Amino acid sequence: MSLPVSAPLPEALVAELRGRFGERLHLGEGQRRQHGRSEAHFAERLPDAVVFAHSPDEVLGLVRACIAHETPIIPFGAGTSLEGHTLAVRGGVCLDLSQMNRIVAANAEDADCTVEAGVRREQLNAHLRDMGLFFPIDPGADATLGGMAATRASGTNAVRYGTMREAVLALRVVTPGGRDIRTARRARKSAAGYDLTRLMIGSEGTLGVITEVTLRLHPIPEAIAAAVCSFATLAGAVDTVVQTIQCGVPVARVELMDDVQVRAVNRRAGLGLPEATTLFFEFHGSERYVQEQAEVVGGLAAANGGGAFSWSNRPEERSRLWKARHEAYYAALALRPGAVGWTTDVCVPISRLVQCISETKRDLEASILPAPIVGHVGDGNFHVIFVLDPDRLEEAAEAERLNRRLVERALAMDGTCTGEHGIGLGKQEWLTAELGEAVELMRAVKRALDPKDLFNPGKVFALS
Amino acid sequence: MSLPVSAPLPEALVAELRGRFGERLHLGEGQRRQHGRSEAHFAERLPDAVVFAHSPDEVLGLVRACIAHETPIIPFGAGTSLEGHTLAVRGGVCLDLSQMNRIVAANAEDADCTVEAGVRREQLNAHLRDMGLFFPIDPGADATLGGMAATRASGTNAVRYGTMREAVLALRVVTPGGRDIRTARRARKSAAGYDLTRLMIGSEGTLGVITEVTLRLHPIPEAIAAAVCSFATLAGAVDTVVQTIQCGVPVARVELMDDVQVRAVNRRAGLGLPEATTLFFEFHGSERYVQEQAEVVGGLAAANGGGAFSWSNRPEERSRLWKARHEAYYAALALRPGAVGWTTDVCVPISRLVQCISETKRDLEASILPAPIVGHVGDGNFHVIFVLDPDRLEEAAEAERLNRRLVERALAMDGTCTGEHGIGLGKQEWLTAELGEAVELMRAVKRALDPKDLFNPGKVFALS
Repeated sequence: MSLPVSAPLPEALVAELRGRFGERLHLGEGQRRQHGRSEAHFAERLPDAVVFAHSPDEVLGLVRACIAHETPIIPFGAGTSLEGHTLAVRGGVCLDLSQMNRIVAANAEDADCTVEAGVRREQLNAHLRDMGLFFPIDPGADATLGGMAATRASGTNAVRYGTMREAVLALRVVTPGGRDIRTARRARKSAAGYDLTRLMIGSEGTLGVITEVTLRLHPIPEAIAAAVCSFATLAGAVDTVVQTIQCGVPVARVELMDDVQVRAVNRRAGLGLPEATTLFFEFHGSERYVQEQAEVVGGLAAANGGGAFSWSNRPEERSRLWKARHEAYYAALALRPGAVGWTTDVCVPISRLVQCISETKRDLEASILPAPIVGHVGDGNFHVIFVLDPDRLEEAAEAERLNRRLVERALAMDGTCTGEHGIGLGKQEWLTAELGEAVELMRAVKRALDPKDLFNPGKVFALS
Repeated sequence: MSLPVSAPLPEALVAELRGRFGERLHLGEGQRRQHGRSEAHFAERLPDAVVFAHSPDEVLGLVRACIAHETPIIPFGAGTSLEGHTLAVRGGVCLDLSQMNRIVAANAEDADCTVEAGVRREQLNAHLRDMGLFFPIDPGADATLGGMAATRASGTNAVRYGTMREAVLALRVVTPGGRDIRTARRARKSAAGYDLTRLMIGSEGTLGVITEVTLRLHPIPEAIAAAVCSFATLAGAVDTVVQTIQCGVPVARVELMDDVQVRAVNRRAGLGLPEATTLFFEFHGSERYVQEQAEVVGGLAAANGGGAFSWSNRPEERSRLWKARHEAYYAALALRPGAVGWTTDVCVPISRLVQCISETKRDLEASILPAPIVGHVGDGNFHVIFVLDPDRLEEAAEAERLNRRLVERALAMDGTCTGEHGIGLGKQEWLTAELGEAVELMRAVKRALDPKDLFNPGKVFALS
């Protein structure tokens, strides 16, 4: 693939950045290429330079320099986004925050912590373990907390613990006005003015660079139980989830795999699971309470045509039960050696989920592409993983066509085109289909805060 | 008090409003006065007209007319705000939404509902009861859902169920651009662009008029238990709460009263409670689980110097145990016949709560004013209720002086000046003290969305 064209960086900017960052300024193709591609199906778009910052002050310096030279800034964390968020579509400077990985403070009594944007969630949880606390948001990838905030990430624990929207108490942000602000104090709740924290969460780097994140934490549960159950019908599985929530069982995770996905993990990991719609549960609480939860849900599953309800609160047995779920993505890719994944992300009201998945499966069964389904079913969010041969353009076109039908279906059900991956480059058309004139308000906010369109330009929407 | 001066409404606007609203346009002093005063200590500021709207379309028509005539619009719900949010400081049209009280939809399977902005929370819960669902946010007053969203209200259940920030899935809003938008779809979560829902929540009518609110609901718990316990020390009470949360007990409510407040309720209601710091708990779950929660917390209370731990899951006994808490505000006012309340609202990290309340109590003990304390202690939020003689200006000045010391103390502890009441007219100075340059971002957003400053002008901050 040839390098994309963009105006070269002004010499004065390069000189200033070299003065500020020395060897942490990279102009060579190696780093630019590493930062100019995504984990998903998008073509690479290289930045003109990559800078590794080490502090909020350095970020402020870089931002001011780039503003002065009207040069785009693309914040970069772990590069695990799935919608091309970090691609430098208008060139500019990629600001890599991964070396800002200091845990600034962790407060056991308040169950909160403040971390630099480059801290990754596994690093954070390792740090918190001895304090008896954990950070629940788990998008799968070992993403940075700054990136997770910027994309409003969620994942398997959201049904109980919420998304980054609920998990973040405050942010430190360098704004397009060249200010270093904090969006809130460390209080658990506040009614002090507009919710700048939530405005920044999910803004995908287009309204500022997040440099520190203050997070709500949770006590590590006394007991954790896992359960697995396969179902004769999709409706039986989803009804079990709906009734679980209606009974007030505070399920911590509930994940769905369709028969295609179960076949894939059986094939890769030799698990011998029944090749049918399968639910994976996790329960958190006291020893007695996780047992009670498992009993209630086991009864609901049986009433809805579920097979054997296997559950355990012993760690090694829990891992065995959830092994299939943890393997899901790579098992899907292993369906075709050399293939790449192309992941959809709709989320619908749970009352529409059976219909949405069923109609989608009919589409998929008529398609040439292997396409397993995994879902955060408690939230109504599920992913089709199209498994593509990257050299066959017609396969990407087929994924595109099927995704279009899926998103239109979800929107007709009052759902969203993206439950957790964000808009980035890939879903801009759908953002407008979903929210109509409300997108004009978003543009007005963007214009007000970043009138020169220098912060991750071209993401979420085109400004003009 | 004399009527405030404001430019009279343009005749063409009055004619248009009369055409659209007929008898629901009020220009007389009666309605203007009812809408121009607040439940708190602020002087009245009358609108030039009051209009009762009956639909989002009528709101849109009114907004467009007012924009055309550059006339301020002040949205009005139940008028229960405590920071002067509905006072017409620049005149204009008060838009009363209380007759827009239709429950548009309630979906049992999805545990959500959409209501017009004027629906009150008690009306909503009465409607939901037969569906086995409830809406948990309880700010005390029987406020409208639109007003609660506009002020980011919370209250006694927030420790378990969150605030309006977490409770709202989507809003329908008439914007200052004269558009009728929806901020989100009905999906449980979404990463589709900027979080306009949260931007509107807490914007206090300054960014648009909320006409419909889509809410997350919760299943009515199988069992509810209440408990009361008094403590030898404030630290013992707060430590019990901290440890309760650290143990993972999902307490639904935990409220604190200081000795002064308990004395007040004893006096008014003859309850005979020990006149010491007292905690009121509520637990939600299965029969077995609420018992387990009460046992765990009873043990923690005993270890922290708590007295008898009375608990029950029988409705009439629960009501008896919580009677003191429900009486708190009126019991405080009854300390002085003819008095008015003036309520503070700081919220601090819970690790600082003992120090914050202790220092505050020392201030209060040295003051002439009766000033009981009640707190949503699980969130670190507490209220001092100054009980003032409205005819003695020096008493308001004394409340002002004590509140200033309290807010400065809370800010020094990384807390907020307002946990749940909002900025309104009363806390604008503190908003800047709390968030510094971040307030400039808020102003930039306001200017971008409402450049003529017509939507509830003068609230949150002065625009220029």
